[in-house]
Amino acid sequence: MTDIAAMAKAVRTGDRRALARAITLVESGKADHRDQALALLDAVGSDRQALRIGMSGTPGVGKSTFIESFGLMLTAQDMRVAVLAVDPSSARSGGSILGDKTRMDHLSRDPRAFIRPSPSQTHLGGVARRTREAIRLCEAAGFDVVLVETVGVGQSETVVALMTDLFVLLLAPAGGDELQGVKRGIMEIADLVLVNKADGDLRAQASRTCADYAGALRLMRRREGDPDGYPKAMTVSALDHSGLDQAWTDMQTLAAWRRDTGHWDAVRARQARHWFQEELRAEMMALLTNDATLRSRLADLENDVAQGRMTPAAAARAALAPLDRG
Amino acid sequence: MTDIAAMAKAVRTGDRRALARAITLVESGKADHRDQALALLDAVGSDRQALRIGMSGTPGVGKSTFIESFGLMLTAQDMRVAVLAVDPSSARSGGSILGDKTRMDHLSRDPRAFIRPSPSQTHLGGVARRTREAIRLCEAAGFDVVLVETVGVGQSETVVALMTDLFVLLLAPAGGDELQGVKRGIMEIADLVLVNKADGDLRAQASRTCADYAGALRLMRRREGDPDGYPKAMTVSALDHSGLDQAWTDMQTLAAWRRDTGHWDAVRARQARHWFQEELRAEMMALLTNDATLRSRLADLENDVAQGRMTPAAAARAALAPLDRG
Repeated sequence: MTDIAAMAKAVRTGDRRALARAITLVESGKADHRDQALALLDAVGSDRQALRIGMSGTPGVGKSTFIESFGLMLTAQDMRVAVLAVDPSSARSGGSILGDKTRMDHLSRDPRAFIRPSPSQTHLGGVARRTREAIRLCEAAGFDVVLVETVGVGQSETVVALMTDLFVLLLAPAGGDELQGVKRGIMEIADLVLVNKADGDLRAQASRTCADYAGALRLMRRREGDPDGYPKAMTVSALDHSGLDQAWTDMQTLAAWRRDTGHWDAVRARQARHWFQEELRAEMMALLTNDATLRSRLADLENDVAQGRMTPAAAARAALAPLDRG
Repeated sequence: MTDIAAMAKAVRTGDRRALARAITLVESGKADHRDQALALLDAVGSDRQALRIGMSGTPGVGKSTFIESFGLMLTAQDMRVAVLAVDPSSARSGGSILGDKTRMDHLSRDPRAFIRPSPSQTHLGGVARRTREAIRLCEAAGFDVVLVETVGVGQSETVVALMTDLFVLLLAPAGGDELQGVKRGIMEIADLVLVNKADGDLRAQASRTCADYAGALRLMRRREGDPDGYPKAMTVSALDHSGLDQAWTDMQTLAAWRRDTGHWDAVRARQARHWFQEELRAEMMALLTNDATLRSRLADLENDVAQGRMTPAAAARAALAPLDRG
């Protein structure tokens, strides 16, 4: 039996080993661990807030190098930085991004940094829950910045954007006609588009790519909650460490603007409501599937629906009849 | 009180007025109507199947003209054709595609055709339920083909693809560089891409557009359940009535292949399971929100979550405690 109060206290002192154990607890699929995890999340409180930065970029854009350089720049300014990964593909492969911490060799050894790979989970919903709760634990542990990294595939960006304050899209220099390759949905959630590798031979190409994206961003409808000039595209070089300070300044400017205008709190409240609805759905499904009798009934009804013997609507009613208090 | 048995019998004779009344019943949001609708859907049975064709195309591609020409070709072959519309935008505007039946003047007056505009609904989920149930009623009424039309926006294509046997994408001739404008997601669900307006001055341009799409389709991964040569791109002219017979032949070939290989039944079963899950979610939410006490408790908990006083997971548990039999 874990001593939840002691664990919560240790997390709040910023102890990284306690934080790692706490995240392992919220990642667990076991029912009794889940009870403990909820108690822990309650015990650590919600009085501390970090700047939560979502970050996406397809493989090859230099994301690990960027996070390492960016993270080290922040820790050098005495900030504490946590890096979490969301990788829905690891749900299938059992693999993990950030799994090889040596990808961020210096940052992972920095005492002001905390790096946590993506767990193997069965579905994006599970990954989302674990990441939200890990973010909350990192905030309780006093981290100033929580960077949530995802790969540029599927719906993971949307999921990460729903749990972060800012969203950064990292891109590589490319020909202008490749601009279409970025999914429109991702452009729409990006606050900052960073064209990496603006160094050496690629510098000019990075500038052109950046101009293309800046143009594309200008064509997009300005979002409620954006000050002038945002979303913004800029070039950086994680290798040369150039542009990183400007990117950080721009992130802080945007965050300050949102705090001042009330958008920060409004967005966090909206996100919390969204996740409440998601949790409600997941828990309702758990109510039906944790009980062996209900589960077997559900399987029979699903079979009836699949065979065309019942409509989905009638079967859903029948499945829920045992829960109906009316 | 509606006589459900009598209505079911009238629907099964193919009576169009009875079918229209039956669809109105499944569209109703009232609780007692809903009970009657479920009884009706059960009473009409599921022994009859139509070929369900999903169709999408952005405004301006000549979709109404195509459906009119295509529908009249089928009714001339003594087939009975139903046309339903799914328009999520009407959910917001209260408007309706197909609302003006004069858009399909000849088809709407054809006794072998049945045209039903999209209802005003509050959300895509409601539109989806109504459309699935209207399809089932049309099948019970003995229609051979049910055409489900949607506008090329948002997620409506995915929803329609999840309730139809074939999906047809209707496009207009365009410059090659506009190929990117079609959302990749739609290309992935299309079985047949028809480039319309292959007549007069646009004939050559339509052929080029068709070749572009044929090339794009070849680059895409072949799907389980597709015979050689599918998905397929071809030119048609709804105005000249050219290519429509070939398109119909290709649809029949694909449908026959899927029936022979068992994909038809497998896909319908998978779709039914999907909608069962959706109905389960909707009905579970209804359980929580129909009861005034539970609804008020839910609102309080949502507020606690939005203010950061509770985690989404803990609040979801608390909300569901009254339903928990465990």
